[in-house]
Amino acid sequence: MVVGIGAGDPEHLTLQAAAAIGRAGVFFEIDKGIADLAALRATLLARHARPDHRVVTAPEVPRERDPADYPAEVAAWQAARARAYAAMITEQLPAGAVGAFLVWGDPALYDGTLRLLQGVADRTDPPLRVVSIPGISSVQALAAAHGLILNRVGEPVLVTTGRRLAERGMPPDVPDVVVMLDGRTAFADLPDTDLDIYWGAYLGTPRQLLVAGDLRAVADEIVATRAAARAEAGWIMDTYLLRRRGAAEPAE
Amino acid sequence: MVVGIGAGDPEHLTLQAAAAIGRAGVFFEIDKGIADLAALRATLLARHARPDHRVVTAPEVPRERDPADYPAEVAAWQAARARAYAAMITEQLPAGAVGAFLVWGDPALYDGTLRLLQGVADRTDPPLRVVSIPGISSVQALAAAHGLILNRVGEPVLVTTGRRLAERGMPPDVPDVVVMLDGRTAFADLPDTDLDIYWGAYLGTPRQLLVAGDLRAVADEIVATRAAARAEAGWIMDTYLLRRRGAAEPAE
Repeated sequence: MVVGIGAGDPEHLTLQAAAAIGRAGVFFEIDKGIADLAALRATLLARHARPDHRVVTAPEVPRERDPADYPAEVAAWQAARARAYAAMITEQLPAGAVGAFLVWGDPALYDGTLRLLQGVADRTDPPLRVVSIPGISSVQALAAAHGLILNRVGEPVLVTTGRRLAERGMPPDVPDVVVMLDGRTAFADLPDTDLDIYWGAYLGTPRQLLVAGDLRAVADEIVATRAAARAEAGWIMDTYLLRRRGAAEPAE
Repeated sequence: MVVGIGAGDPEHLTLQAAAAIGRAGVFFEIDKGIADLAALRATLLARHARPDHRVVTAPEVPRERDPADYPAEVAAWQAARARAYAAMITEQLPAGAVGAFLVWGDPALYDGTLRLLQGVADRTDPPLRVVSIPGISSVQALAAAHGLILNRVGEPVLVTTGRRLAERGMPPDVPDVVVMLDGRTAFADLPDTDLDIYWGAYLGTPRQLLVAGDLRAVADEIVATRAAARAEAGWIMDTYLLRRRGAAEPAE
């Protein structure tokens, strides 16, 4: 099972995910070296897992974060992870037992675990049955924290990455853009003068940070806040909505 | 409070939403005349609400579903709903009490309740404090049911409406498009020959229907399935992902 556990707030877990955690015998973890995230996982296991559950941990496969050929680098990284996952599962999951991967946010959005396991499932005998359990994504935690509706009447919303935003800029025909995985603060380099930004980091956790306003007015504040928080915590996960002002009336 | 309750599965409720339902004294409902949806709300209240909770129901404000001027019609409809909501709240919510609106999916995606209440809050004395609680959206229920990751490596995802898809077609530079609110089966009229579709209706409910495949091969099946299901149930809510084949390798 791949279980979405939300962006950081243990109360964002669904009843379905809590029950799934209670059914699993073995939890597989890739150690990303982020203490806060490990603590959230431990909290969820303490609250919802069976007393006799086991945790199997593997070190994260190293990855170059800013490669020249991004898709090729990701593919190589995913292949190495698939081998690590397959080995873990083959060695540690008894026949008939339920294994679980707890993933941040929702397994369907910018997380590769589900695809990896589907690849692993094709190679195991008996074949592994892979189940996906949805979770509250950081996009939803961001919207709730700011009291936002992401779309405007009849208008689309684009979910994209910081890399893509840096390459292509704001799309001309989509007034609302959610940006994830932006380690380079691409928002600060946009030429647009008619954007509001709703930014959030460590969403749902005690470290949660929120900044909102005219992008031109608050971009520097977000860059500085982000750098200081990252230095203090040792990591950061953030996401934001860019909203073109006056493009359409709010609400649907 | 605006509480997202998921797309249909009572187990998709978050722990936060369950606790919020347990705190509310009054639940405000707009009667949409859909028995299945009323039944889900009743189930959630029976499981999670205080024994002394009250339910206040108002009839849905009539709306023209296919107007010439869509944003103007929505704005007029929203204004009429805002008046109905303000009247309900003023008359029925005791000072200091917590009122809740339970909304399908996530309050941040194609739902206007949050915006309406923020408009109402500005006119009440003392001012109403509006809180948004995220919920699993039909997009996430769709992805989980099909075992999908919505995005491909480093690629964006567009969330749009059936109306917009019918007007603009598939965007040239976004390989994955989620379509909501498509009462006219816009997918069936697309000229593209390189699309797969992952369709779902009544997601998370006992009526759940799923169809996936090459759009050209399964479009007729979906149109027929949809029409038959709608005739039988008296209503339908469906959503789908359109995925351009071969655009990029899967997973992130």
